[in-house]
Amino acid sequence: MSDIVDVKAGIEAENDKYAAEVRKLLRETHTRLINLMASPGAGKTSLLEQTIDGLKGAYKIAVLEADVDADVDAKRIEAHGAKAVQIHTGGSCHMDASMTLQALQTLDLNQYDLIFLENVGNLVCPAEFDTGADLKVMILSVPEGDDKPLKYPLMFQVTDLVLVNKIDTDEIFDFDLQKLEKNIAPLNKHARIIPISAFTGSGVENWLVYLREKLLEWNYSCH
Amino acid sequence: MSDIVDVKAGIEAENDKYAAEVRKLLRETHTRLINLMASPGAGKTSLLEQTIDGLKGAYKIAVLEADVDADVDAKRIEAHGAKAVQIHTGGSCHMDASMTLQALQTLDLNQYDLIFLENVGNLVCPAEFDTGADLKVMILSVPEGDDKPLKYPLMFQVTDLVLVNKIDTDEIFDFDLQKLEKNIAPLNKHARIIPISAFTGSGVENWLVYLREKLLEWNYSCH
Repeated sequence: MSDIVDVKAGIEAENDKYAAEVRKLLRETHTRLINLMASPGAGKTSLLEQTIDGLKGAYKIAVLEADVDADVDAKRIEAHGAKAVQIHTGGSCHMDASMTLQALQTLDLNQYDLIFLENVGNLVCPAEFDTGADLKVMILSVPEGDDKPLKYPLMFQVTDLVLVNKIDTDEIFDFDLQKLEKNIAPLNKHARIIPISAFTGSGVENWLVYLREKLLEWNYSCH
Repeated sequence: MSDIVDVKAGIEAENDKYAAEVRKLLRETHTRLINLMASPGAGKTSLLEQTIDGLKGAYKIAVLEADVDADVDAKRIEAHGAKAVQIHTGGSCHMDASMTLQALQTLDLNQYDLIFLENVGNLVCPAEFDTGADLKVMILSVPEGDDKPLKYPLMFQVTDLVLVNKIDTDEIFDFDLQKLEKNIAPLNKHARIIPISAFTGSGVENWLVYLREKLLEWNYSCH
């Protein structure tokens, strides 16, 4: 049974202060935090299942599962052998840095190398809040359409990586990866774009390579 | 070119007061308002295109297109011959009653029978705000999964109707309509569930029949 933690939103003007506290805690315990954001049903939990399977043995992983109210995802994560903490956001549609800090403090972080924060399914508010994470990753799923950067620009601006999930259905949904890249380009010149299918497993290795490189890079950095 | 209206969120504690003002305005002008809610990319605009085509001639329709920042949807709606007002929510992930009132006041409501509010793509916050609408309709798209009521219960509690879009892809996504109905039942005993495909057109007539019946029922009611 995973732990359930009820968190309360912090004062918005103080978010930077809490984000700095999150970073301090992560550096002190040699832990890295990845903020995973997406629409409902884009495949966040399925991706995490594949990621845990791909990295376990090499890295100790925990997942903070943020939901308005549920614990189905935490159970799926624990079935793959990673620690899961179910966070109830009390109606909030996003995680802020204060909530992230409250959730991290329930773990003995010295035991973990890598923490994923599975944010609430939403392309708007999660983009507005720095959680103190080392990396922001978003999933766009093919059925949502290649025009989404036009409608949710901030999310595409702030992310370090766009995982394009359910890529095996691109023909059914007339999804054009080049059009997506063209829509992202004016918003974000640095974001990597990796097409994957968490269902068939296609492209997941490219994401794991990206992640392993990040982890090595972080290991060799001063902090 | 559609109008673009920047709206500002009202004080949350006063939302009921604004919702009452919206209702008063709608009754005075014999207009009905439908609040359409869904995740990003679930098919709200595609459904509206089909709905406008199905009802035009019989009813005069306008659409309030709420987006954080974009006007692509308004252009699609106007191409189908309905009036579109593009609302920019200034970063807000939902429409409240005050914002809805500001948007409605830009229209001569006496000219319209039916207004659709295409809410911001989000399953969390839009469910928390009464906009003063006569009917709440949500779209769940098949690729999002049949487990979504477990994760976003409030949305499924407050809606009058669940349109299950992209039903033509149910086998690809292993989507079980009966499982969805079972997940909705404890949350909402009254909600109708209508499977549709805005892409193939399948089931859209059932939605139009539902809508025409509502419009007749409203016409015969005292207000």
